[in-house]
Amino acid sequence: MLRRITKNTMKLLTLGLLLPGAVMAEESAPPAVNDMDTMWVLLAAFLVFFMQPGFAMVETGLTRAKNAVNILAKNFMDFALASILFFLVGYGFMFGEGNSFIGLSGFALEGMSDGNLPLLASWFFQAVFCGTAATIVSGGMAERTKFTSYILSTAVITTLVYPIIGHWTWGGGWLSQMGFFDFAGSTIVHSTGGWIALVGTMFLGPRYGKYTADGKSRVLAGHSVPLAALGVFILWFGWFGFNPGSQLAASGASNAGAISLITVNTNLSAAAGALAAMCTVWMMYGKPDLTMCMNGALAGLVAITAPCAVVSPGASIVIGILAGMLVVMGVMLLDKLHIDDPVGAIPVHAFNGAFGTLAVGVWGQKALGLANDGLLHGGGFTQLGVQATGVIAVGAFAMISMAIVFAIIKSTVGLRVSLEEELRGLDIEEHGMEAYSDFQIFTTR
Amino acid sequence: MLRRITKNTMKLLTLGLLLPGAVMAEESAPPAVNDMDTMWVLLAAFLVFFMQPGFAMVETGLTRAKNAVNILAKNFMDFALASILFFLVGYGFMFGEGNSFIGLSGFALEGMSDGNLPLLASWFFQAVFCGTAATIVSGGMAERTKFTSYILSTAVITTLVYPIIGHWTWGGGWLSQMGFFDFAGSTIVHSTGGWIALVGTMFLGPRYGKYTADGKSRVLAGHSVPLAALGVFILWFGWFGFNPGSQLAASGASNAGAISLITVNTNLSAAAGALAAMCTVWMMYGKPDLTMCMNGALAGLVAITAPCAVVSPGASIVIGILAGMLVVMGVMLLDKLHIDDPVGAIPVHAFNGAFGTLAVGVWGQKALGLANDGLLHGGGFTQLGVQATGVIAVGAFAMISMAIVFAIIKSTVGLRVSLEEELRGLDIEEHGMEAYSDFQIFTTR
Amino acid sequence: MLRRITKNTMKLLTLGLLLPGAVMAEESAPPAVNDMDTMWVLLAAFLVFFMQPGFAMVETGLTRAKNAVNILAKNFMDFALASILFFLVGYGFMFGEGNSFIGLSGFALEGMSDGNLPLLASWFFQAVFCGTAATIVSGGMAERTKFTSYILSTAVITTLVYPIIGHWTWGGGWLSQMGFFDFAGSTIVHSTGGWIALVGTMFLGPRYGKYTADGKSRVLAGHSVPLAALGVFILWFGWFGFNPGSQLAASGASNAGAISLITVNTNLSAAAGALAAMCTVWMMYGKPDLTMCMNGALAGLVAITAPCAVVSPGASIVIGILAGMLVVMGVMLLDKLHIDDPVGAIPVHAFNGAFGTLAVGVWGQKALGLANDGLLHGGGFTQLGVQATGVIAVGAFAMISMAIVFAIIKSTVGLRVSLEEELRGLDIEEHGMEAYSDFQIFTTR
Repeated sequence: MLRRITKNTMKLLTLGLLLPGAVMAEESAPPAVNDMDTMWVLLAAFLVFFMQPGFAMVETGLTRAKNAVNILAKNFMDFALASILFFLVGYGFMFGEGNSFIGLSGFALEGMSDGNLPLLASWFFQAVFCGTAATIVSGGMAERTKFTSYILSTAVITTLVYPIIGHWTWGGGWLSQMGFFDFAGSTIVHSTGGWIALVGTMFLGPRYGKYTADGKSRVLAGHSVPLAALGVFILWFGWFGFNPGSQLAASGASNAGAISLITVNTNLSAAAGALAAMCTVWMMYGKPDLTMCMNGALAGLVAITAPCAVVSPGASIVIGILAGMLVVMGVMLLDKLHIDDPVGAIPVHAFNGAFGTLAVGVWGQKALGLANDGLLHGGGFTQLGVQATGVIAVGAFAMISMAIVFAIIKSTVGLRVSLEEELRGLDIEEHGMEAYSDFQIFTTR
Repeated sequence: MLRRITKNTMKLLTLGLLLPGAVMAEESAPPAVNDMDTMWVLLAAFLVFFMQPGFAMVETGLTRAKNAVNILAKNFMDFALASILFFLVGYGFMFGEGNSFIGLSGFALEGMSDGNLPLLASWFFQAVFCGTAATIVSGGMAERTKFTSYILSTAVITTLVYPIIGHWTWGGGWLSQMGFFDFAGSTIVHSTGGWIALVGTMFLGPRYGKYTADGKSRVLAGHSVPLAALGVFILWFGWFGFNPGSQLAASGASNAGAISLITVNTNLSAAAGALAAMCTVWMMYGKPDLTMCMNGALAGLVAITAPCAVVSPGASIVIGILAGMLVVMGVMLLDKLHIDDPVGAIPVHAFNGAFGTLAVGVWGQKALGLANDGLLHGGGFTQLGVQATGVIAVGAFAMISMAIVFAIIKSTVGLRVSLEEELRGLDIEEHGMEAYSDFQIFTTR
Repeated sequence: MLRRITKNTMKLLTLGLLLPGAVMAEESAPPAVNDMDTMWVLLAAFLVFFMQPGFAMVETGLTRAKNAVNILAKNFMDFALASILFFLVGYGFMFGEGNSFIGLSGFALEGMSDGNLPLLASWFFQAVFCGTAATIVSGGMAERTKFTSYILSTAVITTLVYPIIGHWTWGGGWLSQMGFFDFAGSTIVHSTGGWIALVGTMFLGPRYGKYTADGKSRVLAGHSVPLAALGVFILWFGWFGFNPGSQLAASGASNAGAISLITVNTNLSAAAGALAAMCTVWMMYGKPDLTMCMNGALAGLVAITAPCAVVSPGASIVIGILAGMLVVMGVMLLDKLHIDDPVGAIPVHAFNGAFGTLAVGVWGQKALGLANDGLLHGGGFTQLGVQATGVIAVGAFAMISMAIVFAIIKSTVGLRVSLEEELRGLDIEEHGMEAYSDFQIFTTR
C-alpha cells in the first residue's frame, strides 16, 4: 500500500516534468566519455558559477546602499531562473536540431548527447554561461528597474535571446558556418549581456540626479568599494573556469598545452588591462581611480575571451592594454551621451566584447582554418570581416529583440519604479527590507 | 651534538602525539590508490572547506553588528577544533572497528586504510563534513550563547555525537545494515546540525526583545544582507564539492556520468528552491523577501543532498520546489512556537534534511538495491520506512545527547550571556573588540 | 588590402613584445607533458591566485575605512604588475641559465621549457607565488605609504629581489646546492614578503597616533572584522593550492599520497595555530581575541609551508601550536619595539616563515637526502644548519636590497604621505574617492 502511494505520489509530482529518469539512466554509463575531460569541465563550470557572486558584489558595491538588496536579489534570482529555463527550454533552442537560425529539439535535454562529455556535464557548463550573459544586464539597469520587470526580461533572455545567438555560433548555425570564431564568448556571452544592458538603460533613462539640468554629469558613487573589489577578484578567479574550461577537454598533451596557454593569456590580458586603465585614467584625471583599474581588468578579461586560444601571450598583453584604454574611453563616451550605466557594464562587456572578437581577426594565429600567411580566414571574407559580421549581427539581434521585450514590459507592468520609490531606495518598496538594518554606529575619530 | 639535540627535541615535542611518522611513511606509496579519484576528492574537500566562510558570512550578515565578532569567532574556531578532534578521536569512533553503534579503533588514524583513496585524503574529506555539521549549530544559537560554552559543545559534537551518527550510517553501523541511504548527508550532516541547533535554542530561550509581552514576534533584522548573500553564494559553490565529491571517485565513464548527474541535480534543486521560496513568500506577504529566497536555495541544496545520486533532474526540480515551500512554512512554524532561530538553521538543515532523506524513498530510482519496480528497497521495510527510521533515530540521538550536554553546561559554566551583555553585544564582553570599530561615517543624501 | 592592413597592424602592435607566437606554437603540442599533472598545477595556481583577495580583505578589514581604497588598490595593482614583470623579466632571472646567484636567460620565457608540465602552466604557478610574496608587503606598510612608491617597490621585488631569492633555491642556485629545503616557500615566498615589510615599516615609521608621547601603544582598530575574517578563510582555502600544488604533480599513487599528506598537514597546522594563538592570548589578556586567532591560523599555514611534504600529521600539529604561540609573542615584541605593522604581516610571514623553515631540520623525516637516522641532512652541515643559513641569507638579502630601494624612493618621490593626508585618509588624496561613499545610516537601537 505504502509503495503504491509512494509510486503514485511520484507519478503525480513528476507530471509535467519531462525527465522522470531517462537522462539519469543514460548518464550512469555514457558511451565514449572521457573522465578527465569531464572532471575538468565540471570544475571549470563550478568556477564559472562562482562568477555569480562576483557580479553580485561588483554591482552591489558600485551602487548605493538603499538599493543593495534589490541588486542582490536580481543577481541571485536571475541565475536560479536561468538554471531552470535553460534546462527546460533554452538548451534545446541552442543545441537542438533545427535550422541555421534556431534549434527546435532537445527540450529538457530529451534525445541530446555529447561527444567526450556526459550530456549533463556539457549542459551544466553551458548553463552557467547562459547565467553569466543574463546577470550582466542587471548592472547597467541598476537602481531603477522594477524587480518583476527584470525577472521577466531575464526569462526571455535565457529562454530565447541567448540560446538563439548561441545557436548561430556554438550551436552550428549560420555564423558558425561562415567561420565566425569566438572561443569562450566575448561576443556570444559578454557582448550579448552588454548590448541588452545598453538597450535596457536607454529604455529606462538615467537615474534621478545623474545629470543636472544644464547637462552636467554627477557622480553617484557606490557604497562599498571593498565589496566591489572583492567581486572583481572573484570574477578574475572565475574566468579561469570560463576561458580554460571552454577548451572542453584536458586530457592528452595537446589539451594540456592549450589550457595552459589559455590560462596565461587570460591572466596577462587582465593584468595589462588593469595597468592600462590605471595609466589612462591617471594621465587624464591626475589620480589612479581604483574602480577604473578594476574595470580595466574586467575589460582585459572580456576582450581576451574570444581570442584566448589562438593568440600568443605577447598579443594578449597588447589586447589587454587596448582593452584597458578602451574601457576608460567607453565610460567617458557614455557619460557624454547621457547613457547612465551605473557599473560600467556596457564599456566592459559590450565594447570590449566586440573588440575582443575583432582581435581574433587581427592577432589570431591558428584555429580551424589557418591559412598560409598565418592569419585566420573565414569562408570567402577575411577573418576580420567574418568577425565583424558576427559582432554586428549579435549586437543587432540582442538589441532589437530586447527592445521589443522592454517596450512590451514598459507598456504593461512598467519597467521603472516610481520617482518616490527611487529616491527612497528600491529595497524597502520592492523587498520590504533594508540591506544594513540596525547597523551600529561607532564613534568616528 | 646538534643532531642529537634535534633528535631529542623531536622526540620530546612529538611525545603524546600518536603519529610521529607512521602514516606519512605509508602514504608515500599507498597500494591500490587511484590518482584521479584522489585529485577529485581533494578538490571537492577544498570546496567543502570553503563552505565554512559561507556559513560565517550568512550567520554574520543575518545577525546584528554588535555580535558580529562573536559569531565569526565561533565559525572560525569550531572548524579549527573539529579538525584536531576529528583527527585524534572522531574518525576512529566513526570508521574504526567496533560494534554497530560505535567504532572503537583507529584513533589518530592508527591502523586505518581506505580503498581507492590515500587514507589522509579520505580523512580530510570526512573532516570537512564533520566541520560542516558542527558549524550549522552556531547560527541557531546566535547572539546569546557564551563563547566558551559554544566551544565546549562543539568539542562534544565533533568528538562523539557526529561520529556516532556517522558510524551508524557511513561507518557501516546498524542504519547502514538496514539499507538506509543518505548519499551526501541530508540527515547525517545537515539534520544533525539542525536538530542540535533546535535543542540548543530551546535551552537558551529567545533573544531579548524577540517576542513582545503579548506574544507578538518582532524582526531583529541582520546587519548586512550583502554579506549574507555572499555567504549563500559561497555555500552553493561549496556544495559542488559536498555532493559530487561524495561519489568519492571520478575515474572511468561511470563515475564521470555520476558526478555530472549529481552536479546538475544539486544545481537544479537549489534553483528551484530559491524560486519556490520566492513565490511562496511573495504570495503570502506581498513582497519577494531576499533572505527567504536565499533560505530557499539552501533548503533545496540540503534536501537534494541525500537523493542527488539516485534521482533524475526532473525529480530534483520537484524536490527543490517542495524544499523551498517547506522552508518558508518552517520559518513561520518556529515563529509561532516562539523558537528563536536567528538565521533559519532549523528549517533549512533539520526540516529539509529530514525531507530530503525521505525523498530518497519517494523519488529514488536506483542504488545499491534497486528492485523491479524501479524504486529503492531496504531490508524488509520499504525504503521509505527505512529512511524514516534513520531520520527519527538520528534526530532523537542528536537532540537527546546534546540536551544532556547543554544541561551540564548550563548548570556549570552557563550557556547564555547576561542580559546586560546581550544588550551591549557579545563582541565587547566576550572578545574585547568591535566588528566595525572606528568606522567612518560619510554624508548621507 | 584589408589583410595587408591587418598584417601590418599586427606587426606594429606586437613590436617590442618578445613573444608574437613562438611559445604558443610550442605549447600546442609539448613533448613529455603529463596532462593530469598539468590540470593539478593549473587548478592549484587558480587557488593561489585567489589568495590575492584573501590578502586584500584581511588588510582592508584590519585597517581604517579612510584608507580602504588605497590598500585595495595596492593589493589589486601589485598582482597586475607582478604578472607582467614576472613574465617579461622575473622568470628569466629566477629559472634562466646563469650562475648560482642569478639566471640570465629566458626573458619573456624565450627558450625555456619544463619537464612534466607545459612551460606556460609552470610559469603561471610561479607567477602567482611571486604575486603572493609581493602583496604581503602592503599590509605591513599600510595606511601611510604613497601609492606610487608602493608600486615602484613592487616592481623591484617582482623583477629582481624575489626572482634572485628564487634562483638561489628553486632555481638551482647556491642554497639549493647546499641542500636547503623549503617545499612551498615559508622562506622563499613568505619570509621574503615579511622581511621586506619589516624594512619598509622601519623606513616609514609608525602611523600617526600609534604610540603616545610617553611610549604607550594605542590600538588603531581595523574597520571591518567580517572582511578580515573572510580574507583569512579565503587564504586558508587558497593554501590548499599553495602547498599541495607545490608537489607539481598528481599522477600516480605516489603523488596522490604526497598531495594528501600535504593537504592534511596544511590543515592541521592551521587549525592548531588558531587554537594555540587563542589559548595564548586568552591566558595573557583574558579574552579570546579573534584577530589573534586568525593570525594564529595564518602563522600555522606559513610555518607548515616549508615542511609540509616531509613531516607527519602529528608533527604538523606541533608546528602549528608553536606557530600560534610565536605569532602572539611576535606581535607583542614588535609593539614593544615600536615597529608599527598594522596587520601583523611581520610576525605571520617573517617570523613564522623562518620558524617553519627551521622546522624542516627538526621534524623533517625524509626528502631528497634521507639519512639512516631518519633526519634530513644537507651537504656537510646538519640539515638544521643549512636551513638556518637559508633563512638568514634570504632575510639579509631581502632587507638589504630593499633598504637600498626604499632609501632611493624616500629621497626622490618620497615614501610616506603627508601628515595632513594621513589624517584625512589616503583614499581621497591618492585616489580621489571614498570607500563607503554615500553610505546610508539607519536607526540604531
